[in-house]
Amino acid sequence: MLQPAALSGLHATLISLLGAERVSSAQSVRAHHGHDESAHPDALPDLVVFPQTTAEVQAIVRACLDHRVPMVPFGAGSSVEGHTLAIHGGVCVDLSRMNRIVAIHPEDMTATVEAGVTRLRLNEELRHTGLFFPIDPGADATLGGMASTRASGTNAVRYGTMRENVLALTAVLPNGEILHAGTRARKSSAGYDLVRLLVGAEGTLGIITEVTVRLYGQPETVASAVVGFETVAGAVDTVIQAIQCGLPVARAEMLDALTLRAVNRYSHTDYPEVPTLFLEFHGSESGVKEQAETMQMLAQANGAGPFAWSTLPEARSRLWQARHTAYFAGLQLVPGCRCMATDVCVPISRLSECIEATYADLRAEGVEAPLFGHVGDGNFHLMLLVRPGSEADLARAKAINHRLVERALAMEGTCTGEHGIGIGKQRYLAREAGEAGIGAMQAIKQALDPLNLMNPGKVFALPVEES
Amino acid sequence: MLQPAALSGLHATLISLLGAERVSSAQSVRAHHGHDESAHPDALPDLVVFPQTTAEVQAIVRACLDHRVPMVPFGAGSSVEGHTLAIHGGVCVDLSRMNRIVAIHPEDMTATVEAGVTRLRLNEELRHTGLFFPIDPGADATLGGMASTRASGTNAVRYGTMRENVLALTAVLPNGEILHAGTRARKSSAGYDLVRLLVGAEGTLGIITEVTVRLYGQPETVASAVVGFETVAGAVDTVIQAIQCGLPVARAEMLDALTLRAVNRYSHTDYPEVPTLFLEFHGSESGVKEQAETMQMLAQANGAGPFAWSTLPEARSRLWQARHTAYFAGLQLVPGCRCMATDVCVPISRLSECIEATYADLRAEGVEAPLFGHVGDGNFHLMLLVRPGSEADLARAKAINHRLVERALAMEGTCTGEHGIGIGKQRYLAREAGEAGIGAMQAIKQALDPLNLMNPGKVFALPVEES
Repeated sequence: MLQPAALSGLHATLISLLGAERVSSAQSVRAHHGHDESAHPDALPDLVVFPQTTAEVQAIVRACLDHRVPMVPFGAGSSVEGHTLAIHGGVCVDLSRMNRIVAIHPEDMTATVEAGVTRLRLNEELRHTGLFFPIDPGADATLGGMASTRASGTNAVRYGTMRENVLALTAVLPNGEILHAGTRARKSSAGYDLVRLLVGAEGTLGIITEVTVRLYGQPETVASAVVGFETVAGAVDTVIQAIQCGLPVARAEMLDALTLRAVNRYSHTDYPEVPTLFLEFHGSESGVKEQAETMQMLAQANGAGPFAWSTLPEARSRLWQARHTAYFAGLQLVPGCRCMATDVCVPISRLSECIEATYADLRAEGVEAPLFGHVGDGNFHLMLLVRPGSEADLARAKAINHRLVERALAMEGTCTGEHGIGIGKQRYLAREAGEAGIGAMQAIKQALDPLNLMNPGKVFALPVEES
Repeated sequence: MLQPAALSGLHATLISLLGAERVSSAQSVRAHHGHDESAHPDALPDLVVFPQTTAEVQAIVRACLDHRVPMVPFGAGSSVEGHTLAIHGGVCVDLSRMNRIVAIHPEDMTATVEAGVTRLRLNEELRHTGLFFPIDPGADATLGGMASTRASGTNAVRYGTMRENVLALTAVLPNGEILHAGTRARKSSAGYDLVRLLVGAEGTLGIITEVTVRLYGQPETVASAVVGFETVAGAVDTVIQAIQCGLPVARAEMLDALTLRAVNRYSHTDYPEVPTLFLEFHGSESGVKEQAETMQMLAQANGAGPFAWSTLPEARSRLWQARHTAYFAGLQLVPGCRCMATDVCVPISRLSECIEATYADLRAEGVEAPLFGHVGDGNFHLMLLVRPGSEADLARAKAINHRLVERALAMEGTCTGEHGIGIGKQRYLAREAGEAGIGAMQAIKQALDPLNLMNPGKVFALPVEES
């Protein structure tokens, strides 16, 4: 798509800016950056650059603008909707070397980090402060990537998502200007909320280079619990009732029987293969005990088996290790398969009904698919497994996902709770946001990026004014 | 400014849409809508309309577009930065008759209401559900107005601001389209965050006609407390330390000695006239007791006097009644005066220092001004009293506010924690957001409202393409 002349001119400019060792056109580097965790086909960038400062990102953006070449920001490559695939070619801006901790302010409970810092790294740095950063999407994603996709994960039920936890950010806008949006103050009414506009914009409105996030006190006591149920509805209703009565559960994950079977095989665990809740409670010793006991009572009223809870760190890490491998475990159910992950989120009162209708659809299709999710938020994932090269599997997965999204929207929910739109959910965004919403989003995109060079083809497809 | 022909044509159109009794050009009605709680001079709209549905608002917007006449949304008129003043004339869209409770979903802890519903009315409607809506800016503002200015107030330290608590909204965009943004799901990664873009846009990007907000369980027990200190720093540091150690205080207001003097005179109370904290705790009976005792311990370590706490509803309502009258009480210190209210918010670690430097500035100027605020958020207000007709007072107030804002920005804070930009803080928004930020905001405004007819002259001054 790109004209070779534009690219070779740009290549030379980028080398003059960054030095040859931080500009790559090597096939292996391009291939690594043109692949993600999604079922979307690979799409390689023409070049990959490795900036180390916001000023370098600015210089890269200006060079790409001059040459009218698309740019795709890249963090850890862990997104699952094709956000980092270079579907219009161009330059992949890999931010992983922007990994400095800029400032930790324990007294204000904030941390400012470069976009390439990962969540595990940040938490390591925080360990001695008594604080932690809660958002945990499973993968060891970068903070910049998590902000760009408005990520959340297992802790969101208590601590919110990136939407609530990014206080400020630095980004290079599509016009090459450096934006500092937000402040370290806990609240502000100063003008349009550019922080929350960039958070979740999937790199289409600018490249985030730095974020300031909220931190939380490490809880005095952490308890984890596992409890199996006769039915998925029993597990889900237990969590919903806990939320409704104000129990501040920190994590509430539901894994269905098939997911447990996959996890047991993959991780050599022996969880009973029934619908199961993985839970975590944060608080004082007595507070955690009270929470666990209340949850146990609710679980028993909803047909639970034995309720095992513990404050031992090993029990806790074994549990979340198993939970975080659920995706990879699920993939092993069908050798060589790829996965189409669904991601609807509905008002919590509709969650049981939404899941039940989804199972009915799966049964009607004769499809088995692991189902698990962040039930306290009303968000769950179905792993629709697609056998290698099977067009029939792919078509069936798309049809199931389509019906699932329609079901969620009819229940006043959203087509994506935390994965984002990327390439895969654009038609559903159009359904969900409506003409006025899509029109407003596109007007904003065109105002800030008239050439459509910032991660083009993501969120929505607009013409690209490339060279 | 407006051509009489445009106005009379529009007037006739509006009467045909709404009937004569809901379109007013009466001087008294225009005067009521051209005045607010700020020190800014009155600015009357040419017409005032009273729509009852979103469809009517849409018809009004289309008519104003056709005639190129500015529109100013109006809720309770309680804003303090001139948001509702019709500085370019035009049509004031009074939403107070859009006051239906659309839906309350106790099981999802959400409520959907029309924009003209006030916060007290919503809480009355919620009483039987065991839930409540916490955001409390003092005035009985409308939910639409609170969303538009990103309001917060005394409960924000625990429950967040309108930014965190609006899940979805309906608005008529400047092009006359009806936008439904957000869903009732607790989280979403679906495209640009139009909800948070409209929240805090001060009516410049559309007229909000409906909002869906989060609700919270009414706490089992509520305790209120009053405690006086030798110094403002002692009071502030007590709250900051409580926040830092994770104490979930629900309200933490500091009133300085002068504010207490004004309150005592106005409300016939007898609070000791020293820097004082008004506190509230929410939780279980034992939880509230634990919180109050921890706070008492911190207070005593910071030089507090007696710590009086109570779970009696009367004690609580007396306290917040006194707090909410602080503004009006302050105004009585100088008969006939107007008030320039400051509104900076800084990272909590800098709050004591910011307040101390502000007092030093006041002393140097020989000015007395009540100071109070939401210290748990780092947000405080200085009431700069301006004697009637005194240019010198006004100039001095502006200079003090200017230095205060510069001080807050230097401390990584914001020029407005909760009042908004309106007319009064535009130069500070430019300082705070920087050229790139203001440029991006204006590009968005121009993209969505190219004629600049939606509340023109608020947030920033752009040319108005009126008839």
